[in-house]
Amino acid sequence: MTTPYWTRPEPPYYVTVFTITPSGVDPDGYAAMNDRMIELAEQQPGYLGRESTLLADGSDLTVIYYTDAESIRAWQQHPEHLEAQRLGREKWLARYRVEIARVERAYEFTASEQPGSG
Amino acid sequence: MTTPYWTRPEPPYYVTVFTITPSGVDPDGYAAMNDRMIELAEQQPGYLGRESTLLADGSDLTVIYYTDAESIRAWQQHPEHLEAQRLGREKWLARYRVEIARVERAYEFTASEQPGSG
Repeated sequence: MTTPYWTRPEPPYYVTVFTITPSGVDPDGYAAMNDRMIELAEQQPGYLGRESTLLADGSDLTVIYYTDAESIRAWQQHPEHLEAQRLGREKWLARYRVEIARVERAYEFTASEQPGSG
Repeated sequence: MTTPYWTRPEPPYYVTVFTITPSGVDPDGYAAMNDRMIELAEQQPGYLGRESTLLADGSDLTVIYYTDAESIRAWQQHPEHLEAQRLGREKWLARYRVEIARVERAYEFTASEQPGSG
């Protein structure tokens, strides 16, 4: 489940940015692996929310939020995650970059009248 | 110009995550403001690259990378940026959240044979 972005807590918390370019090999297998990894990510204690989207060049951008760095490490070390990484490098993925970042500041805005509320 | 994600430096560096829900008022004005803000972001010293994409719910997700927190502050304080924020809150934006995060770790992978490289 994706939680709305305006429900995130006050900093500090953590964000992991995944930029992934599929190889084009076995797209159904890649999609199934992606779905399972998202499921694991959401079950991990400390999970706060995520956004997943397709970039113009066909890469996948996923931004996942956690309360702390330890939650991210635990998720990364999950046996199914390690196996998915191994298979990903073997066939599904052409490139990827993963960035783990500590959110230091955040600010937000909500219009007093939301679209459709009036 | 968007630089490829695999050209980013080793950590530490910074990422700013913008999640923006337009109000639907004056979409052309919103688009023009967005384009100008991206232009300013790219001209700011310390700029490393960005990804911009549309989420399934119609919100805009933009991830912009900078070498350091001072570059982000300077960009945020640009007079045109401040004016755009004011106008955005007045008419273009229903909601937004901006997060400034320090990238502590990054890892990446490039397949030995890239698609199309033969």
